[in-house]
Order: sequence, then C-alpha cells, then structure tokens
Amino acid sequence: MIAYALLGGPKEEWPIDIKDILLKAQNNHDLIIGVDRGSLLLEELGITPDLAVGDYDSLKKAELAQIEHSVADIRYSNPIKNYTDSELMIRIAFEEYQVDSLVILGATGGRIDHFLVNMFMMLNPDVRQYSEKIVLLDRQNKIRYYLPGQHKIAWENYPYFGVATLSAVDNLTIAEAKYHLENYSVAYPQIFSSNEFADKGKDFKLSFAKGMVSVIFSKDLERFYHLNN
Amino acid sequence: MIAYALLGGPKEEWPIDIKDILLKAQNNHDLIIGVDRGSLLLEELGITPDLAVGDYDSLKKAELAQIEHSVADIRYSNPIKNYTDSELMIRIAFEEYQVDSLVILGATGGRIDHFLVNMFMMLNPDVRQYSEKIVLLDRQNKIRYYLPGQHKIAWENYPYFGVATLSAVDNLTIAEAKYHLENYSVAYPQIFSSNEFADKGKDFKLSFAKGMVSVIFSKDLERFYHLNN
Repeated sequence: MIAYALLGGPKEEWPIDIKDILLKAQNNHDLIIGVDRGSLLLEELGITPDLAVGDYDSLKKAELAQIEHSVADIRYSNPIKNYTDSELMIRIAFEEYQVDSLVILGATGGRIDHFLVNMFMMLNPDVRQYSEKIVLLDRQNKIRYYLPGQHKIAWENYPYFGVATLSAVDNLTIAEAKYHLENYSVAYPQIFSSNEFADKGKDFKLSFAKGMVSVIFSKDLERFYHLNN
Repeated sequence: MIAYALLGGPKEEWPIDIKDILLKAQNNHDLIIGVDRGSLLLEELGITPDLAVGDYDSLKKAELAQIEHSVADIRYSNPIKNYTDSELMIRIAFEEYQVDSLVILGATGGRIDHFLVNMFMMLNPDVRQYSEKIVLLDRQNKIRYYLPGQHKIAWENYPYFGVATLSAVDNLTIAEAKYHLENYSVAYPQIFSSNEFADKGKDFKLSFAKGMVSVIFSKDLERFYHLNN
C-alpha cells in the first residue's frame, strides 16, 4: 500500500494534477493522510483523509470539529514535542499502517523554516530508516532520499536533477549522467545542481559511503518569467 | 555601501515591495547586481544593474546583447566551474566592491536545487567569512547566517522564526525567546521551527560553539489558503 500525505504548504506549489493523484489513490485504496491543516485542505478537495495527524493549533474550532466528524483515525500531537507532526505521521504510516512507500505533498513553498523541516527530517534517526521510501512532490520538483551504498537512479521525466549531500558524506560518485563526480567527500551540505540524465530513458549511478544524499528532480516553469511586474 | 543582488527565482516569491527597495537603493548609490537572468529581470523592473554576473546560458542572444549594452561591469562565469554564479557574485561584491553587506533577492521558490544552493552556499569556505553580512529576502521570509559565538538577535517584524543548524553544531543555546534550547549539539542539519520573539521589540540570544546556524524569520501569507482549487 502507498500512502499520500498532504501537509499545509501553499497550493501554488502543489502538483498541478494533485486532485487526479489523490482520486486515483482513493480508488486504489491507498492510504490518504492529512497533516494538520492538510486535513482541511483535503476536505476542500472533496477527499476525506483516512488518517489525520497534527496539533491542529492553526485550525478554528469549527474546522477541527469538521475533521473530527469525518476522519476515521485522528491523532493529536503534542505542540511541545519530540517529533514534528510530519515526523509523527511518517512513523504512524510505516509502523502502524505498514505502508510500502509515502508520497508527501504540500511540503514546499511558503515559510522556509517549514520547508527545511520537511526536507531535512529524513536525517532524524527515527525517520532515517524510511527515507528511501519517501518522495516529496510539488509542481516542479520531485525529491528522493538515499542511504549509503550503490544506487541505480531510474530515469524520470524531468530535464534537470541536483544531488545534495544532506550531511557529511564520503566518496560521493555520480556516473553515467551528463556531469560526473568521483569520490567526493564533504563535511556539510553541498548541492550539485542542474545535472541532467545522459539520455532520455537512461538511468544514472549514484554511490557514497556515509551520510545521506538527496536527488532533486526538477523542471522550469515558463510562467515564472511572464508575469506582470 | 550595501549591495542588492537579484537572482533568477520566480517573481511570486519576491518581496512585494521589491521595486521600492531597489529604487531606494539606486537613490542611495548602493550597488545593484544582477545574477544571470536576474540582470534581465532588473531591466524589466526599469533598473539597470551596476554589475552583472553569470554564464547567461539561459538567455537568448538578444537578451544578452541588451545586458551587454546597458550594464557597466559584466562578468562571465565558466559554466563548468568551481563557483556558482551566486558564489562568484558574493566574492566580487565583498572583495572588489568592498560592500559592507549584501541583500539577496530572487533566491527562493521554483527549482529546489537552486534554492538549496543559495541557502547552503554560505558553508563554502570561500563564502563563509561573508555569511554574517548576507541576508536572503523574499515575500514572507528573511534569512540570516551566524558563525560560532554569542549573538544578540535584534527583533524583526516577523511573527515567527526558525533556527537551523546548517552543519554539525555544538552547544546551541536559544535564550530569551518564546521557546528555549540549551547546549544542544547535533551532527547534521536540524531545524527548530515556529519559535517567536518573547515580546514585540525584544531581542533574543543565540550562541553556539562550532559550525553555522541560520535564523529564518517568517510570516504566514493569508492568500495561500483562499485560492480556488
């Protein structure tokens, strides 16, 4: 079973086909999760989440009452806590619901402290073990996470990808892509942006010995340069 | 002298008053810099940059010709290079133009590999020495960087702030804010989001012994929750 979780990030950054993604998930009996305000945003899309997680402190009383009425499994997190709402959601999805993978929507845009929490929570020792099964997806980016070892990165229909060391990493090698990197070690996050697949349909190889690496697949959106000032 | 640099990030994330900011800078004879497509975006705002830095590989020939015609100091970076365009810009601003501080605009939104480059380039040993003099500014966030030591963080007119360890950090302490933290050490990036100033106008204290820390001041934007689906 796949899980789809919607966080509270701005709608402008959601995948353009988010409603189709979620309706298809619902038809497949995948798990649909709302995190905090994400539960309300799912209801606005006409989709009742199977599971809601949050402290709900940003919701009005009537909004929370609506969720409590419709959602079968509601979890209340502690506002002053060891886990963020998203971290708690990941643990419940993998440990209790035993999902095989998790697609996180609404994780980007808006407040940058929120985005960085979502991007870097995979480093939390209690989340790390699930990181390779988690994808962050928005309108123009898809983010995957990798643990040490040798990886074949499947071709994706995005013109660019960046490789980010999220922590100290040893012997990072990128092979069979447009730009190569060999046995690179670094003690802090560094981002190799704007790499490309060597050819349409062609995988590339990624390997490293320590830490965590993220691959960010991305595309440009034309709209950005054609707005009125 | 202050420098203002515009990168190529999407306009939706620019400060709402970006034109006023730049016109005021121009009147003050501050340095205005365009990085790659940012030079063209400045011209679209009616502001000719004093300095342009980039490889310009995303520009059309006529667009590049326009910049070459109007900008007094143009620098061409090498597309396969040791420094990104933004890193090169920072070095030129501080080393050649001897600016006192730098405000970076257009650094957020859009392609996440690009944003992460902008966020984490301060860790580059050649940029690190300037990091405390650099601010990233967008529509709802202001990002500052701190080196080890004791810091009094001046009150800012933002309701929230997050504290992010950008690398391994020792003995991180946050005092005199809404939520405290004492002597926290961590080997990788971790974000303490949604903290608040204790009172309007009241500073807080930040100290740590190793690494680099960023403070992200932020506000919510109502618009995010009132769009049509």
